[in-house]
Amino acid sequence: MLNPEYPADPTREDSLLAAIDLGSNSFHMVVARLSQGELSTVDMMSEKVQLAAGIGPDKRLSSEAMERGLTCLSRFAQPLNDYPPDAVKIVATNALREAVNRRVFTERAEKILGVPIEIIAGREEARLIYLGVSHTLANTQGARLVIDIGGGSTECIIGEHFEPIELESLHMGCVSYTQLFFVDGIISEKNFRQAEYAAMRELLSIRETYKKLGWTSSVGSSGTIKAIKNACIASGFSEENITRDALHQLKEKVLSFNNLSEVDIAGVKQERAAILPAGLAILTALFNSLNITEMTFSEGALREGLLYDMAGRLRHEDVRERSISALIQRYHVNEAHAQRIEQTALSALDQVKHTWGLKHPDYHEMLSWAARTHEIGLTIAHNQFHKHSAYLLQHSDLAGFTNPEQLLLAFLARGNRRKFPKEEYKQLPESSKEAYKRLCVLLRLSVIFHRSRSSTDLPAFTLKAEGKKLELCFEEGVLTNYPLTQADLEQEIEYLKNADIKLSIN
Amino acid sequence: MLNPEYPADPTREDSLLAAIDLGSNSFHMVVARLSQGELSTVDMMSEKVQLAAGIGPDKRLSSEAMERGLTCLSRFAQPLNDYPPDAVKIVATNALREAVNRRVFTERAEKILGVPIEIIAGREEARLIYLGVSHTLANTQGARLVIDIGGGSTECIIGEHFEPIELESLHMGCVSYTQLFFVDGIISEKNFRQAEYAAMRELLSIRETYKKLGWTSSVGSSGTIKAIKNACIASGFSEENITRDALHQLKEKVLSFNNLSEVDIAGVKQERAAILPAGLAILTALFNSLNITEMTFSEGALREGLLYDMAGRLRHEDVRERSISALIQRYHVNEAHAQRIEQTALSALDQVKHTWGLKHPDYHEMLSWAARTHEIGLTIAHNQFHKHSAYLLQHSDLAGFTNPEQLLLAFLARGNRRKFPKEEYKQLPESSKEAYKRLCVLLRLSVIFHRSRSSTDLPAFTLKAEGKKLELCFEEGVLTNYPLTQADLEQEIEYLKNADIKLSIN
Repeated sequence: MLNPEYPADPTREDSLLAAIDLGSNSFHMVVARLSQGELSTVDMMSEKVQLAAGIGPDKRLSSEAMERGLTCLSRFAQPLNDYPPDAVKIVATNALREAVNRRVFTERAEKILGVPIEIIAGREEARLIYLGVSHTLANTQGARLVIDIGGGSTECIIGEHFEPIELESLHMGCVSYTQLFFVDGIISEKNFRQAEYAAMRELLSIRETYKKLGWTSSVGSSGTIKAIKNACIASGFSEENITRDALHQLKEKVLSFNNLSEVDIAGVKQERAAILPAGLAILTALFNSLNITEMTFSEGALREGLLYDMAGRLRHEDVRERSISALIQRYHVNEAHAQRIEQTALSALDQVKHTWGLKHPDYHEMLSWAARTHEIGLTIAHNQFHKHSAYLLQHSDLAGFTNPEQLLLAFLARGNRRKFPKEEYKQLPESSKEAYKRLCVLLRLSVIFHRSRSSTDLPAFTLKAEGKKLELCFEEGVLTNYPLTQADLEQEIEYLKNADIKLSIN
Repeated sequence: MLNPEYPADPTREDSLLAAIDLGSNSFHMVVARLSQGELSTVDMMSEKVQLAAGIGPDKRLSSEAMERGLTCLSRFAQPLNDYPPDAVKIVATNALREAVNRRVFTERAEKILGVPIEIIAGREEARLIYLGVSHTLANTQGARLVIDIGGGSTECIIGEHFEPIELESLHMGCVSYTQLFFVDGIISEKNFRQAEYAAMRELLSIRETYKKLGWTSSVGSSGTIKAIKNACIASGFSEENITRDALHQLKEKVLSFNNLSEVDIAGVKQERAAILPAGLAILTALFNSLNITEMTFSEGALREGLLYDMAGRLRHEDVRERSISALIQRYHVNEAHAQRIEQTALSALDQVKHTWGLKHPDYHEMLSWAARTHEIGLTIAHNQFHKHSAYLLQHSDLAGFTNPEQLLLAFLARGNRRKFPKEEYKQLPESSKEAYKRLCVLLRLSVIFHRSRSSTDLPAFTLKAEGKKLELCFEEGVLTNYPLTQADLEQEIEYLKNADIKLSIN
C-alpha cells in the first residue's frame, strides 16, 4: 500500500521527499514535506558510520566498515519502503569515490534501499552544498565563501545569491587527516603542524583565484565546523562566530591533550572529539591561506541541497522575504491591516531616523517585517497575543534569518502593545538595545493609530525625536475626532516612562 | 471607504463582528473575526463606567453618569466608524432598564455609535450569558448552573449543552447592593448580613424550582465572580475554584475593614475592591440558598453570547472536539499519520488500562487528543517540535478545555519523543502524575512504531504493564524486519529509565 503522504510525482503538492548523504564520516537522512513550494523537515537521522576510517592503504573498504554502513542503511530504509523511487535521492561522496571495491558496497546497499546510489564528483558535491547553504542565508548582496569540511574532502565555493561562481573539492577531510597525521592517536605540536601544512599545500591550487575574486562573508557548514564553533563559544573564546583568535585558543587547548582518546572539550560531543584536532588543523589552514578573519555557521548542507534540487525549487527571490510571507500566510494575518501598520511605522521612521540614529536600511527592513508579523500570535489566542507572536518569531524555522535577528524581531512583536517589555529588553545584545527600543516605540505608535482596523484616513501627525524625548504633533483639535486614539496615546505616555522615553502630545 | 476586513453580510467568511454590552457597572466591547465558522477575538475594551451608581432614588440617571458613559462610547465608536450596521450589536441591561430618563441617554449614544441600542429584558440577558458561557465549556453530560452577578442584576440559568432550561434575572447586583447596604461606605457585620438576607429573599422565587431540577456542575461568570475567585486563590483559601469554605474566609477578611475605601485584598484590583463586599454577600447568599458547594469560573459572558448569536453559530457538537479539529486544520497536521498514531496508542492503552489504572474514559479521550495534535509544532520548526507543540497546546484558546487539561495535553506532546521531560513532569498536579506518565509512555511507543510515516502494517505487539515494568512482546524474529524500530526501541529503554519505567522487549 502506498503512503498517502507522498505522490508518484515528487513535484506534486504535499509530497514527502527523502535525501540521503553517505558521507565519509557520517550517513545522514532528511525527510521533508513539500507543500506550496515550501520544504519543511519532518524527520532527520544521522549515524556516525566512519566509512573513511575503514579504508586501508590498499584503498579497500573493510568488511567491518561495510557492515556498519549497511546496518545503518537498513534502519534508514525502513521508512522508505513504499516511497516511489523518484521521491528518494541518495548520494555518496569521497569515501566511496576512493574505495576501489565500492561496487561491492553499493550493490548491497541498493538492494537494501531499493534506490540507486549516485557517487557524485567533488564539484557536484560542492554545488549541492552551496545550494543547501544558500537557502538558509539572507539573499544579501556580495559574494560569499562557503566551506564544508567532510570526512574525506573539503568543499570550497564562492557564490552570489543562489549561484556558485567558483567550486572546488579538495582531498582533505577530518577522518582521512586523522589517520594520516595523528598516527596511533598521538597529538603533538609537530603532528598538528604537519596536518596544517598539508592542508595549506592543498589550498595552493585555489588560493590565488579565490583571493582575487574575493567575498564579503564566509560561512561554514558540516559537523566539524559546527563542533569548532560550539567549542569556541562554550570555552568563551568567541561570542557567536568562529574568529581567527578563537581558533588559535582552541588549538592551544587541543594541544594540551596527548592523545585523541583523551580529548575532552566543552561543547564537543565525545564521538566527535577524536576527529576534532584534524578538522581544526584544516580549518586553521583555511583561515591562514585564504585570509579569513571570521566565519559564521549554517545548518544547510549537502542533503538540504539535494532536497532543493529534487524539489526543483530554484526561485531566486529573497529568502527572508519568502520566510516572512510564508509566516503571514500560515497564521492568516490580515494583510491589509498589517500593511497599514507597516506604512505608518515606516513613515514614522522616516521622520526620526536622522535624530534617532536609525538611518541604516537594516532598521527599515526589520521594522517592516515586525509590523507585518506582529499579529501572527492572534492565531494562538487573543489573550497575550504579543507574547505568542514573539514565541513564533523566535522559534520558527525562518530561512535566511540568523538567531539574533529572530530575537530582535521577536522583541519588536513582544513590545507592540501593553507594558514595555523590560525583561526581554535586557536580553538584547548591548549594541542593538537603544535602536530596537526606538523601533519598538515607532511600532507601538503605529499599532495605536490603527486600532480601529479601518482603512479610513488617520489624523496627519508629525514626529520629532531627540534623545529620550519624542514629540507627537497633530493639527489643533484634530485628535478630539479620534477619542479612542487619544485615550490610548495618554496611556502610552505612561507605558513609555518604563522605557525611559518621554512622549509628549501636542 | 469600507473596512476591507468585514463584509456587508456578517455571515460572510472572515468578517469582523463587534458586540457591546452597556452593563450597570462596566461597558465592554469585544471585536472578533468570524472565519470558517470560528470566532476569534481580535480586540477587547472595558471601562468601569458605573452607570448604576449614577441612578438616584428618583430613578434618574445623573448627567455625570451619562457623560461618563458617552465618553466611553465615543472611544468604542472610533473603530466602528465604517462597519455596516449589522456587524455591530449593542445591548444595555439593568441600569438602563431601570433609569426613567434612559431615552435621553440612548438617543445621544445612538448618535455617537450609529447603531440602535437594544435594552434587553433580564431573561434575554440570561439566555445570552448562557450561550456565551456554554461555548467556553466542555460539552459534557449533565445539567449546569450558570450564575452571573452584574452591577444591577444577577442571572441564574440551568441548562444542558447549549440549551437553557431555566432562566431568571434577579434584582440584585454588586453596584445597587453597595448603595443599598453599605451606606457611606461603612462595612459592618450587620450591613453585610442585611445584604445577604436581601439576596436570599430574592432567591426565594427560584430556589425550589432550581433545587428540584438540580445540576452536576456550577459555573460563574462576570467580573465580580472572577475577582472573588482570584482573591480566594491569592489568599490561599482555595486552589482553583470557589468553595464554600473559601467564601467564608474571604468574608472574614472583608469584615476586617471598616470602610469600602480601605478594602485592599490580594488578587483584587483597586477599582473593583469597593464593590467586592456587596458582590461577596450576593454570592454567599447564592451558595447558601442553592446549596452550592463549589463553583468554577468561565470567561464567557453576555458579549460573547451576543457574538455567537450574531454569527448564528449554534451547531451543537462537542466544543472540545471542535477545538482539537480546528488545531489540526490550522497547523496542517497530516491526519492519516496522526490517526495511525492515535489508533496504535489507544490499542496500547486497551492492553494496559487495567493493570495501570487507566480505565477512566477521560484517559482515553486525552490520549486520543494528544496523539492527534502532537505534531502541530512541526509547523513552527522541526527542531524541538515537541516543545512547540506543547507551547501551542498550553497557550491556544481552546474552547471547552480547562487550563489544567491544556497543561496535561501539553505535557503529553512535550514528552512524545527524545528525553522524558522530567521538569515538566514535576509541574503536573500530584493526582495526575502517575497516570499521565504512563499515557506519555504509550504515546511515545506509538510514535516510534509509526516513525516510517507509512500506512503499511506494523509488527503485531502485545504489551504487559505492572507497576514500573512494561513488557513489549513481538513474535520471534519479527523485529529484525524493522531495523529502525528496533534501534529506536533500544534507545527508548534508556530514555524510560529517566521516567523510572523499566521497558523490556521480547
